[in-house]
Amino acid sequence: MAIILGDNQYGKAESRIVRIVRDGPRHEIRDLNVTTALRGPFEQAYLTGDQSNVLPTDTQKNTAYAFAKSKGVDSIEEYGLELARHFVGDVDPVTGARIEIEEFAWERAVVDGSEHDHTWLRKGQDVRTAAVTVDATGEYVVGGLKDLVLLKSTGSEFAGFLKDDFTTLPETHDRVMATALDAKWRFSSVDVDWNDVYPRIKALMVREFATLQSLALQQTLWHMGTAVMEEFPDIVEVRLKAPNKHHFDFDLGRFGVENAGEVFWAADRAYGLIEATLLRDDAPPANDAWRFSAGLA
Amino acid sequence: MAIILGDNQYGKAESRIVRIVRDGPRHEIRDLNVTTALRGPFEQAYLTGDQSNVLPTDTQKNTAYAFAKSKGVDSIEEYGLELARHFVGDVDPVTGARIEIEEFAWERAVVDGSEHDHTWLRKGQDVRTAAVTVDATGEYVVGGLKDLVLLKSTGSEFAGFLKDDFTTLPETHDRVMATALDAKWRFSSVDVDWNDVYPRIKALMVREFATLQSLALQQTLWHMGTAVMEEFPDIVEVRLKAPNKHHFDFDLGRFGVENAGEVFWAADRAYGLIEATLLRDDAPPANDAWRFSAGLA
Amino acid sequence: MAIILGDNQYGKAESRIVRIVRDGPRHEIRDLNVTTALRGPFEQAYLTGDQSNVLPTDTQKNTAYAFAKSKGVDSIEEYGLELARHFVGDVDPVTGARIEIEEFAWERAVVDGSEHDHTWLRKGQDVRTAAVTVDATGEYVVGGLKDLVLLKSTGSEFAGFLKDDFTTLPETHDRVMATALDAKWRFSSVDVDWNDVYPRIKALMVREFATLQSLALQQTLWHMGTAVMEEFPDIVEVRLKAPNKHHFDFDLGRFGVENAGEVFWAADRAYGLIEATLLRDDAPPANDAWRFSAGLA
Amino acid sequence: MAIILGDNQYGKAESRIVRIVRDGPRHEIRDLNVTTALRGPFEQAYLTGDQSNVLPTDTQKNTAYAFAKSKGVDSIEEYGLELARHFVGDVDPVTGARIEIEEFAWERAVVDGSEHDHTWLRKGQDVRTAAVTVDATGEYVVGGLKDLVLLKSTGSEFAGFLKDDFTTLPETHDRVMATALDAKWRFSSVDVDWNDVYPRIKALMVREFATLQSLALQQTLWHMGTAVMEEFPDIVEVRLKAPNKHHFDFDLGRFGVENAGEVFWAADRAYGLIEATLLRDDAPPANDAWRFSAGLA
Repeated sequence: MAIILGDNQYGKAESRIVRIVRDGPRHEIRDLNVTTALRGPFEQAYLTGDQSNVLPTDTQKNTAYAFAKSKGVDSIEEYGLELARHFVGDVDPVTGARIEIEEFAWERAVVDGSEHDHTWLRKGQDVRTAAVTVDATGEYVVGGLKDLVLLKSTGSEFAGFLKDDFTTLPETHDRVMATALDAKWRFSSVDVDWNDVYPRIKALMVREFATLQSLALQQTLWHMGTAVMEEFPDIVEVRLKAPNKHHFDFDLGRFGVENAGEVFWAADRAYGLIEATLLRDDAPPANDAWRFSAGLA
Repeated sequence: MAIILGDNQYGKAESRIVRIVRDGPRHEIRDLNVTTALRGPFEQAYLTGDQSNVLPTDTQKNTAYAFAKSKGVDSIEEYGLELARHFVGDVDPVTGARIEIEEFAWERAVVDGSEHDHTWLRKGQDVRTAAVTVDATGEYVVGGLKDLVLLKSTGSEFAGFLKDDFTTLPETHDRVMATALDAKWRFSSVDVDWNDVYPRIKALMVREFATLQSLALQQTLWHMGTAVMEEFPDIVEVRLKAPNKHHFDFDLGRFGVENAGEVFWAADRAYGLIEATLLRDDAPPANDAWRFSAGLA
Repeated sequence: MAIILGDNQYGKAESRIVRIVRDGPRHEIRDLNVTTALRGPFEQAYLTGDQSNVLPTDTQKNTAYAFAKSKGVDSIEEYGLELARHFVGDVDPVTGARIEIEEFAWERAVVDGSEHDHTWLRKGQDVRTAAVTVDATGEYVVGGLKDLVLLKSTGSEFAGFLKDDFTTLPETHDRVMATALDAKWRFSSVDVDWNDVYPRIKALMVREFATLQSLALQQTLWHMGTAVMEEFPDIVEVRLKAPNKHHFDFDLGRFGVENAGEVFWAADRAYGLIEATLLRDDAPPANDAWRFSAGLA
Repeated sequence: MAIILGDNQYGKAESRIVRIVRDGPRHEIRDLNVTTALRGPFEQAYLTGDQSNVLPTDTQKNTAYAFAKSKGVDSIEEYGLELARHFVGDVDPVTGARIEIEEFAWERAVVDGSEHDHTWLRKGQDVRTAAVTVDATGEYVVGGLKDLVLLKSTGSEFAGFLKDDFTTLPETHDRVMATALDAKWRFSSVDVDWNDVYPRIKALMVREFATLQSLALQQTLWHMGTAVMEEFPDIVEVRLKAPNKHHFDFDLGRFGVENAGEVFWAADRAYGLIEATLLRDDAPPANDAWRFSAGLA
């Protein structure tokens, strides 16, 4: 009945790193939020306070900034792999590394019809994410996006559901459907053209959300996930988490005003929450690919 | 030495109203956060609890939803004027109304190269605002935008400043400049093509931010404001509030890595904060145009 | 029709300063968020970019940290006065200074029944604030608190209100009343025992909220304000802003369950918003006492 | 290479339920944020949109509100068990239920030295949590707290750590240590005096944080967890997640001011993040006890 130390990891969360490429007059920008976590024989740090195996989280942060220069940030997936490989390969006691990255998008300012060389506006609300794990079993990349806010004003139904004594919801064959999608996809390979794949995945998900006559948010998620997996053979698992951001018809009939699906109250809470994993039946093992640290990616 | 009731107002803040126009297959969406506040002879509600002059905030909310249908939301400025005129004109004790509106932007989903009829993605982070005041002295519209996040990677200096015993900041002739602009502009008229003006103002501000070789954020703000006022004669006052979102060079030299303005730490706090009002010397009086309620617009 | 520069100010917002007093084994803690803003002849910074009158915001931050040691933080009001006097008195071009401070409360950890010497827990959600202004017209202190979340489960009514075509709210003589109070009070003097006054003001406001059989939130605010002003002669103005955080009866009758004011849905938005100023009829002029910078205090 | 539906669940997140007990003049309040999620044979909702097995999330919300009255909320753990048992036992296709609850604390207003019967102030920032799982394998309760913000101004060291080329952090034998603790503990039984256990666990954690001369946050976490497990035999697993909220000495020496651990800059990001699981070596299987839905509890 002894108490033992189980899973543990430590690192530096949320280093805000902005990388400017300024080789010529036309600069490039990458805007990241980087979390690193290390795994290995750190028991003595817990049991006796002995830090001799512990690389400080401050050092991890320094490394993340240094690699943004020395390795560059062509894609967050590749940059994350470089960092993870360094910690596992170059720092002796470390046996596993987890790198979680958020990337914030910018678009070039347009001035007098032309894209500006060194000025940008923050673009959109959705965030590209990458979660990289490297350990003795291999290298794992989970790509993702979050806070992709989508809304369709028709083409969504909810009917034929189970009813019990607490059910008061009317059936509907035309409602607003809105969500803030959180999607993650696991690759079976690290030999991927990351910057090519990401926008195509996003476009496929938007397409399915838009074009499916939806009988439930569950069905929409399934279509989103399968569209991605059919297009990309090396994506072997997709995890989707989608709040049902309710838009309720506001009852204007009380004041003699008709409301045929035109005026809605966008509610904050409570919200539906639908979660699903799609998986190839021959997917290789995920091992620690889904073991989170800060959980922002 | 009596205690008296001074300025007071009351209303309903943050009604989340989504308006879908569905006259044909191609829908339109307007997504609003509406605050209403009423002014008038409400002393007895405070002094004795007598509510006979008090139109409930719930009624104000109902009205805002009803007008979204009956009057429509062609622009938030016009919709706000309709609401304010109603409260002052149709509700007997009310002598003044303040309507503050945030509008969240959406862009059409693009599916197989075409804009979709009834599906949208939330667009950008900046919010269009309108603050409308109607009272016995007239009608006032303050347009605005907020959370417009801009960054330039060169073309910004900060030097020649005042120094005292607590000054340690080095001078620089090349730094990152970034802000999340909050801008408000007062019109001298309510006969304005609101939806034409808004994007042009935003474009002018972006242009000035991008193209001025900036000696200080103060100078950039002045150029933004004058560009707008020179273009639009009926804009008589511009108020600007701009955090200086610091991007500090991360010292990579400690690890033998050069960093010539390429890797930055984006700090959260503290931040500089620059505020300025630009005004025509013959501007008509603002009266209560700048008297806020919830202050979100 | 020239464009002129009107009101302007600049400074450093949200310096997070923690001050530990460690004269003996029993430490003390003050946890602040400090904003400074300077006013004066800064036109050329805007018009031409000339910074020769501009003390950097970084210097202002350094000064705030230095004063936390050299002057100490006995109270945020006194510390704010010290900072403001320094900027106006010691920095030549500066003619006015505005200091806004939030203070976060901590309580000592209790270990085996005793208060611990150097360990604390963050206490409560309400924040003590001070806004200090010093300029050629004098010295002004506005004390305050915000985010004081209060709820009473009975003793609140709302009836006898004005009705129009959009009114559907039923009258009630027993409802939940809840708010997150934002209160600010202006002193006519700077010779005040700041740390004695603050908790007494808070206690008076809580007492009035609790004990008044409230006919409206307006009435409750009036009672809160007058109780404070009657107790403290040198408080000459009180400004109150109170959201009506709605707690709606959840309709359980649909499932055959009675709900006599026992189960509520706590809504996020929309919320009522009640604002009032109470003032002595012989109050000295406020001048710039209420001219905000970051507006957090 | 077929695509299959893996883990999935759906429910209603964040129902904000306030329960007032008003049997006599002295009321009681419980303030909850309730998430429910159901597991079972819901494949057809995804694959074909067939909802015949799907109890609407709206119904789940209704049930949560109804149970707050009919079952009461003596403790969130017991209330969660009632809800979970109902969904699994009474709703035919449901095979598993997950209930996640946050509870917000209130303290009675003190008026003229006495606790008030029906008025409260929100208390503290820490949140009590419960995550209940009921399925064919049994019943599981995970208690918890989060956002418990603790700070000690001495009694914390960090030295003797591993160094590499990117290490610049100096060693220290006296620093501020601060965190916002997130702790969860798994019970091996559901026959527990929940409201007795919770404050005792919190007190033990605070005691260990305060009294241990800490060589690392890791060591502090280990002491917190073992103190709890040694006191409560039916707690078989503790999971701890603790940001290291850095408080950096502000360099006042540049202005000739000494700073012997008295003035600190409280940084927002980046922060250290330490995570650990403590476990009895004979703990019964957790099964789905740690499978989250909204993840707020």
